[in-house]
Amino acid sequence: MKRARGARDAFYPVECAGPEGGWRSRVHEVIFGIDTPAGRAFDIALVAAILLSILVVILDSVPSIGSAYAGVLYGLEWFFTVLFTVEYVARLLTVRRPLRYALSFYGVIDLLSVMPTYVSLLVPGSEALLDIRILRLLRVFRIFKLTLYIEEYTRLAEALAASRRKIMVFLSVVLMAVLILGTVMYVVEGPEHGYTSIPVAMYWAIVTMTTVGYGDITPHTPLGKAIASFMMLLGWGILAVPTGIVTAEMTARRVDRRHGTRSVLACEECGSGGHDPGARFCKDCGAALPAPLAQD
Amino acid sequence: MKRARGARDAFYPVECAGPEGGWRSRVHEVIFGIDTPAGRAFDIALVAAILLSILVVILDSVPSIGSAYAGVLYGLEWFFTVLFTVEYVARLLTVRRPLRYALSFYGVIDLLSVMPTYVSLLVPGSEALLDIRILRLLRVFRIFKLTLYIEEYTRLAEALAASRRKIMVFLSVVLMAVLILGTVMYVVEGPEHGYTSIPVAMYWAIVTMTTVGYGDITPHTPLGKAIASFMMLLGWGILAVPTGIVTAEMTARRVDRRHGTRSVLACEECGSGGHDPGARFCKDCGAALPAPLAQD
Amino acid sequence: MKRARGARDAFYPVECAGPEGGWRSRVHEVIFGIDTPAGRAFDIALVAAILLSILVVILDSVPSIGSAYAGVLYGLEWFFTVLFTVEYVARLLTVRRPLRYALSFYGVIDLLSVMPTYVSLLVPGSEALLDIRILRLLRVFRIFKLTLYIEEYTRLAEALAASRRKIMVFLSVVLMAVLILGTVMYVVEGPEHGYTSIPVAMYWAIVTMTTVGYGDITPHTPLGKAIASFMMLLGWGILAVPTGIVTAEMTARRVDRRHGTRSVLACEECGSGGHDPGARFCKDCGAALPAPLAQD
Amino acid sequence: MKRARGARDAFYPVECAGPEGGWRSRVHEVIFGIDTPAGRAFDIALVAAILLSILVVILDSVPSIGSAYAGVLYGLEWFFTVLFTVEYVARLLTVRRPLRYALSFYGVIDLLSVMPTYVSLLVPGSEALLDIRILRLLRVFRIFKLTLYIEEYTRLAEALAASRRKIMVFLSVVLMAVLILGTVMYVVEGPEHGYTSIPVAMYWAIVTMTTVGYGDITPHTPLGKAIASFMMLLGWGILAVPTGIVTAEMTARRVDRRHGTRSVLACEECGSGGHDPGARFCKDCGAALPAPLAQD
Repeated sequence: MKRARGARDAFYPVECAGPEGGWRSRVHEVIFGIDTPAGRAFDIALVAAILLSILVVILDSVPSIGSAYAGVLYGLEWFFTVLFTVEYVARLLTVRRPLRYALSFYGVIDLLSVMPTYVSLLVPGSEALLDIRILRLLRVFRIFKLTLYIEEYTRLAEALAASRRKIMVFLSVVLMAVLILGTVMYVVEGPEHGYTSIPVAMYWAIVTMTTVGYGDITPHTPLGKAIASFMMLLGWGILAVPTGIVTAEMTARRVDRRHGTRSVLACEECGSGGHDPGARFCKDCGAALPAPLAQD
Repeated sequence: MKRARGARDAFYPVECAGPEGGWRSRVHEVIFGIDTPAGRAFDIALVAAILLSILVVILDSVPSIGSAYAGVLYGLEWFFTVLFTVEYVARLLTVRRPLRYALSFYGVIDLLSVMPTYVSLLVPGSEALLDIRILRLLRVFRIFKLTLYIEEYTRLAEALAASRRKIMVFLSVVLMAVLILGTVMYVVEGPEHGYTSIPVAMYWAIVTMTTVGYGDITPHTPLGKAIASFMMLLGWGILAVPTGIVTAEMTARRVDRRHGTRSVLACEECGSGGHDPGARFCKDCGAALPAPLAQD
Repeated sequence: MKRARGARDAFYPVECAGPEGGWRSRVHEVIFGIDTPAGRAFDIALVAAILLSILVVILDSVPSIGSAYAGVLYGLEWFFTVLFTVEYVARLLTVRRPLRYALSFYGVIDLLSVMPTYVSLLVPGSEALLDIRILRLLRVFRIFKLTLYIEEYTRLAEALAASRRKIMVFLSVVLMAVLILGTVMYVVEGPEHGYTSIPVAMYWAIVTMTTVGYGDITPHTPLGKAIASFMMLLGWGILAVPTGIVTAEMTARRVDRRHGTRSVLACEECGSGGHDPGARFCKDCGAALPAPLAQD
Repeated sequence: MKRARGARDAFYPVECAGPEGGWRSRVHEVIFGIDTPAGRAFDIALVAAILLSILVVILDSVPSIGSAYAGVLYGLEWFFTVLFTVEYVARLLTVRRPLRYALSFYGVIDLLSVMPTYVSLLVPGSEALLDIRILRLLRVFRIFKLTLYIEEYTRLAEALAASRRKIMVFLSVVLMAVLILGTVMYVVEGPEHGYTSIPVAMYWAIVTMTTVGYGDITPHTPLGKAIASFMMLLGWGILAVPTGIVTAEMTARRVDRRHGTRSVLACEECGSGGHDPGARFCKDCGAALPAPLAQD
């Protein structure tokens, strides 16, 4: 796994605090460094500890396991908390600007990972059920730190960031459809059929257009079923139409070449002429030209 | 956000009524213009007002909020109605051909946005529930006006318009499958299993082929389940087969190069030869040529 | 709509029976010809009649409409039956080889379209419910004749035929997964949780992997839910992985160019070197080369 | 169907045991060879036997068929078991290193295919129901051997292997979302609404994000519905956004050319210039260049 150095500089202000060779520098090298065997071993151990601590949280939430092994799980929970606290303190001690690290994205996650168990000590028995569930949530965020380490993740994130404008446009069209068609269904079906308010109808519209289709709310009137059918074809069609059309076109062209049913000089897709001798792809739209020209 | 001037000319006949410099011209500039700070500020305020008025409608539909805050919401509803009425009148007054604007697509939407609240005054208590629900629907259409302002939407609309023929063909094949397979299921399963008529069976067929799968109607007979399985594989396969095949081919080619199992000069996809020295993509079908030619 | 002459010759043996100018020739021209105004008008009228007759069948299946308008619908059903019978006889009379036409694909459909109503006369009251439902089914097949007329449909059919081998391979992998994972779930969950036999478990597996998800059968054991989760990720992943990966790669490359974080001469995808000066796409795999070479 | 010789060498160590011409060599040729008519006939018969034996297992699991035809099915089951045992022994006898074959992937499958019926003899009546179900499972694995024979399958497998890294990254992002959002819903909705533990919530998250949507667990709180809506749009959007965006862009470019709204020399996608005269696709990102250059 290649280390993503770019992302670390941006998100993770971790210049060393102490002079070269001092204890700070050696600890810093182990915790933040990737070039020494100790540094790499530390990373692997840290990833393992993060995954195991998450597993403890998950197992603890299952009623049968949580009650049968309560003691063991509680002990493991404290073990990991202490471990991550020591690591957190070590990071703060070996970094030049501890405050800046503590306020960075991953610094906050590090702190939130260890806080819950301490908080549960301070608030001993009050609303135990709710507290415990919320605190478990915070510990799960430790897993965000893992993505720091791998290049493909940062590339994927950059790809998403680059396309964000088109994504926004696309999603806003979908949300407008959800709002308008959801309101239509609210009027057509009404609360007596489950569509108790416009937000609920919008929730149903999303369930339907994303083709999830729980079935907790379904249309009962004929008009409602017709509108719902339109919405389903829309949500599914947004997936099917582009892929099906693109692929069908590519294959159809290949078929037509073999059957020799194509005319020669005009691009079928956009109608333009004047292509280079020997040109095979249309200069105007990139589609394959329908037939080879005689002189190639 | 780039203004989509093309769309506005087509949909939105808004030449100024008065002479340059007159009060009409100044108001026209603010409402329709985008080149002055006042014009841009007006647009932003209008978008905000549209979104807030929609939020009022949504909140009003939720029973708990609608009854608790009835007075506030009613007041806000009138506030927005008056606001949009003033804006509508201002548009009519500052445009050269008010009648033409009033009959244009966005002119009609503007009118429908303000009418419901006035209508609810005239029809005070009769069928209050139904009226209010239908009237709320009309107000939600204000949101259509927002898309006027952004270029990507008009480009998306143009892209859809350009592909409309292929979309029609594709959708008609899907609808024929829905009609025929729905009728088959109506015969095979019958009303005692939920398939009460051919239209209902077609609704179920759409729910199944678009992979929504509410579960409000499900097949019970073995033959019905078999036909339903075929339909599900069809609806999902229309998505999976093109994408999976295209990508598997692209990757397979790369793999074959590394293993040296490809011959050199003929395009694998369509079999044609005679490619230019250094050509990398097949002139005939655009697929990647299987191997580099010696001389490049 | 361009007429698909190729398909008609293959599927539809319709040479004229009589000499040029005779009554047979003129009727043949109207029914089968597309070059005269009469011929085109006939086609449009025929399409309309087919669609209307299907609508009669659909409406008749709805209990409320079928009973209220029984007389009208019965009359219309006979009207269309007589109309299509006359058309069928006219085709047989004006074609050179009537037997060959009667046995061709569309000849059989023509016959099946008119037979049911006559059959319902011969079998007057026995099992009326079942007969009527099956007979309605046969009439819906008239719609197949419509696709004869449009070029895009034949192109789509040819594209599918050309890809049939890859489609077979793909579908067989999916069916093997359904068989094996369905059997696993049958063993893990068992009849007491709804998985009453291997065929039923395979039906559930198809419902799950195609992401339809009716919910009529759901896993109850933890292991069953885990296996089901794997199957859902598989069925959805077959759609998501190719599209997401292809698009993420295309965008990521663009981003990397702008940041100048790429090295120069090796193709990132497949690792090969030795590209032409000025080459932009890898000769080996068609992927974009990571950076422009200095000398272009 | 082209034989996939590469895969067989890797997975299937089958060098002949005896000298050329001996009985071992002739049997080896029939069982493993594909070049003689006998060899090919053997393969076809083997595939048919495998499929029929699986059908016996499937039919036996259906309660009505399994009890009605218990005797016939039991007899057929023994017939196939003996057949496959003879084949297995023949393979062991004619292969140079029988132990190596017995330990190879397909060797183990061959053994597992025949063992269950013998095991059911040894464990006559104990826990008959569970045993029988598990044993049937093992017999279904015979079908894996079929893919050995066809080239397309090995190519598909190689394509998947080549992309495994991207698939891992993609799936791990999805699993992290499932873990985090599942835990959030566990906290927000809680056991009283069906989310009884974090694993169950994660199962629900997978059901939702893969758009399967059984409906066995659904959100009840407004916040839960909102988070669920976000997850549904995420799971569906991962499919819709790439395909929709790519296709919309391709079509939009074509439209823009016709309207002459594009400038000439810079690539629209990535902004680079300096393209070769006559270049049609951008050297930097492979997107179609917006307009033909004057000199081509």
